[in-house]
Amino acid sequence: MKPNIAKGTRDFTPAVMAKRNYIFNVIRDVFHRYGFKQIETPSIEQLSTLMGKYGEEGDKLLFKILNSGDFAANLTDEQLLERNSIKLTNKICEKGLRYDLTVPFARFVVMHREEIAFPFKRFQMQPVWRADRPQKGRYREFYQCDADVVGSNSLLYEAELIEMIDDAFTRFGIRVEIKLNNRKILSGISEIIGEADKITDITVAIDKLEKIGLDGVTAELKTKGISDEAIDKLQPILNLTGNNHEKLNTLKTVLAESEIGLKGIAELEEVLSYVETANLHNSVAIDLTLARGLNYYTGAILEVKALDVAIGSISGGGRYDNLTGIFGLEGVSGVGFSFGADRIYDVLEQLNLFPAETLEGVAVMFAAFDAAGIAYCLPWLRALRSKGIAAEIYPEPAKMKKQMNYANATNVRFVAIAGDNEMLSNTVMLKEMSTGTQEALTLEQLLSRF
Amino acid sequence: MKPNIAKGTRDFTPAVMAKRNYIFNVIRDVFHRYGFKQIETPSIEQLSTLMGKYGEEGDKLLFKILNSGDFAANLTDEQLLERNSIKLTNKICEKGLRYDLTVPFARFVVMHREEIAFPFKRFQMQPVWRADRPQKGRYREFYQCDADVVGSNSLLYEAELIEMIDDAFTRFGIRVEIKLNNRKILSGISEIIGEADKITDITVAIDKLEKIGLDGVTAELKTKGISDEAIDKLQPILNLTGNNHEKLNTLKTVLAESEIGLKGIAELEEVLSYVETANLHNSVAIDLTLARGLNYYTGAILEVKALDVAIGSISGGGRYDNLTGIFGLEGVSGVGFSFGADRIYDVLEQLNLFPAETLEGVAVMFAAFDAAGIAYCLPWLRALRSKGIAAEIYPEPAKMKKQMNYANATNVRFVAIAGDNEMLSNTVMLKEMSTGTQEALTLEQLLSRF
Repeated sequence: MKPNIAKGTRDFTPAVMAKRNYIFNVIRDVFHRYGFKQIETPSIEQLSTLMGKYGEEGDKLLFKILNSGDFAANLTDEQLLERNSIKLTNKICEKGLRYDLTVPFARFVVMHREEIAFPFKRFQMQPVWRADRPQKGRYREFYQCDADVVGSNSLLYEAELIEMIDDAFTRFGIRVEIKLNNRKILSGISEIIGEADKITDITVAIDKLEKIGLDGVTAELKTKGISDEAIDKLQPILNLTGNNHEKLNTLKTVLAESEIGLKGIAELEEVLSYVETANLHNSVAIDLTLARGLNYYTGAILEVKALDVAIGSISGGGRYDNLTGIFGLEGVSGVGFSFGADRIYDVLEQLNLFPAETLEGVAVMFAAFDAAGIAYCLPWLRALRSKGIAAEIYPEPAKMKKQMNYANATNVRFVAIAGDNEMLSNTVMLKEMSTGTQEALTLEQLLSRF
Repeated sequence: MKPNIAKGTRDFTPAVMAKRNYIFNVIRDVFHRYGFKQIETPSIEQLSTLMGKYGEEGDKLLFKILNSGDFAANLTDEQLLERNSIKLTNKICEKGLRYDLTVPFARFVVMHREEIAFPFKRFQMQPVWRADRPQKGRYREFYQCDADVVGSNSLLYEAELIEMIDDAFTRFGIRVEIKLNNRKILSGISEIIGEADKITDITVAIDKLEKIGLDGVTAELKTKGISDEAIDKLQPILNLTGNNHEKLNTLKTVLAESEIGLKGIAELEEVLSYVETANLHNSVAIDLTLARGLNYYTGAILEVKALDVAIGSISGGGRYDNLTGIFGLEGVSGVGFSFGADRIYDVLEQLNLFPAETLEGVAVMFAAFDAAGIAYCLPWLRALRSKGIAAEIYPEPAKMKKQMNYANATNVRFVAIAGDNEMLSNTVMLKEMSTGTQEALTLEQLLSRF
């Protein structure tokens, strides 16, 4: 039998895993430093927890788990012969795989609310599953790395997320632009032009400004049924230019009559006032076309774009006011952010930014050529390991070439050779693999080298 | 809607997660130090990869994933109305959740054999899923932490695994006994007494020696249909006492006529010769009753028992000669070991062995009482973070009591208070939460404290 891997899933070899761990370690370290605490939720959730939370399309993309045991026993002839897959699923599946980390987190907060100290700063790094059609860069199993704060309206947290983003990408060496918007400003715009349901059309059109020009955008807005009067009012927004404060000043004029719009502007001003004192390495830019998860976010909307690679958004987030409401706990505001580990991997790979150490194998591999040689090496090997140095021994007295091939293939840094001469003189010959230089060392000398 | 968690699964709160991470970090560090390299395989595997690998019971315990889309469309009336859940499963499910890490690892080795340098030392720390009836200490989702070497027959690796076990449990502070057996000795015993199929009955009976005595064991063996002559031959084995070498000497006499039995003894002697020079902190004891995964292991069998807690085996492993044979790659011998993270957690908890640092929150939380105080604290906060110190600020100018409650609940080590006096004197009042002592510090003094 020739084995196969499930469509849209991946094996991670040691080399890829080492790179992935580098990414996870940087992100985890940033999360820790900012006071976020790790939780984990089960991969398997009740379908009642998941269904209806991701739209109709999301319901289809959930992986459902067949009930154990005799699941078909109690189905009626009618239910069976109808062959209605959706109805049947409800009868034979009670559980599904996590689709994201946000809904399970909301469930977690509601179920553990008595144990949690609010504001609750949590991070979570776990895989999620979606039955999407697999394609380049899109997988059916992938990791999300989320940080959220729930139980506080403080806009300090928006600023803190931006600082974390800046911190992480600076450490990765990836230059980014951090884009910032506010759902309340978008609501204000639709309020002002009297087209509350056209917000998506408007942001989609604005987004095309660079491509199709002002006339093109105006034409597109007309085809969407937006009135000439409304389009007139939109002009200053379509033409929004200048630095963040200039943009906000323009918006203040346009949205002067919209309470919610002004609230959004004030929020952005407060967030900017915090981050402007933070000496960020990357720029923060207000971008009204940013509307990810429109129905979900209620305040800040955040997105990160890599500057040196054409890859789209590599991370994003925002504020939501009623995450836990779906599970009966109202009034818990939250703000959160998700690092896109797979996209970050691709960017680091393309820009050749993974640190060289990431791929290093053990520090020392011992090579011996008979049983006596192996016995000779064992105390040396153990001495290194007990000092915390990664070390191994080639497990048989094989020919030098074979042992060196293994050392090369596993990126060993140094090979410690124990031939007859070395054993006689109580030394090993330490060969640095990257340079080929050799040096005879006593155990004491070897230990002091690492 | 009141949310629920799926039966047999768990949420891990920050406090529990911190303890779990402590365990995973120790194990991961030991694996690294011994030259094992991490891989990951997908949670979802083809059912064809998983079915038939864990026995009939295992097939039932696999979580199966319903095919996406219109899975019922092509089922015939007959197939539907038969209501045969097993047959229907084959028609409507192609994928399942990983049941252990071993079978996916075998698949991995076969699929990646051209890229792998053998001997391949891999470790893997990932969850597995089993539709077991949940009970105390048994979950439907749990982590396995496996290290295996494939592609070498060298018994050095058996010794290396034993050293790793000793290393890890020494660091945990858990006193253990490492039990050692060899499948070939068990085969030799059944060969000698002419009852090849009775090995399980014999080991089960020997295992009861302490409880029911020699006469009881003899009686039980008789009821299993083992001849008087065979029971006579078994006497020296039932009475096996002394240190490891005394036991092996007795076995040499009993198994003198069994080639495979003598091979097993020679293997154990070689493994012991390596570990006897290693100055282990824990004892290694030959135990013939050890027969875990009898059909699976072909050489060494290993198990770890905690000495100070009655909890059964907390880790185990052994050598298998044909793991990848099921996927068409013959002749790849391997030896591996799995740390039982959940059991280790329970032992550490019962013996109160988790290090105190495990539960510590951020090093410093800043407390301010108005907007000016918050603005005053931000540069201090950022200075600590950029030094790698975990720090946060209470996000609103709340009353002291509320802020202190949060600090206590999240195990903050120090609270840095910025009231009017502190702002005037360019200091913060640093309060150590465990002692209550306070000290006014400048930014420079604060940074040098950490």
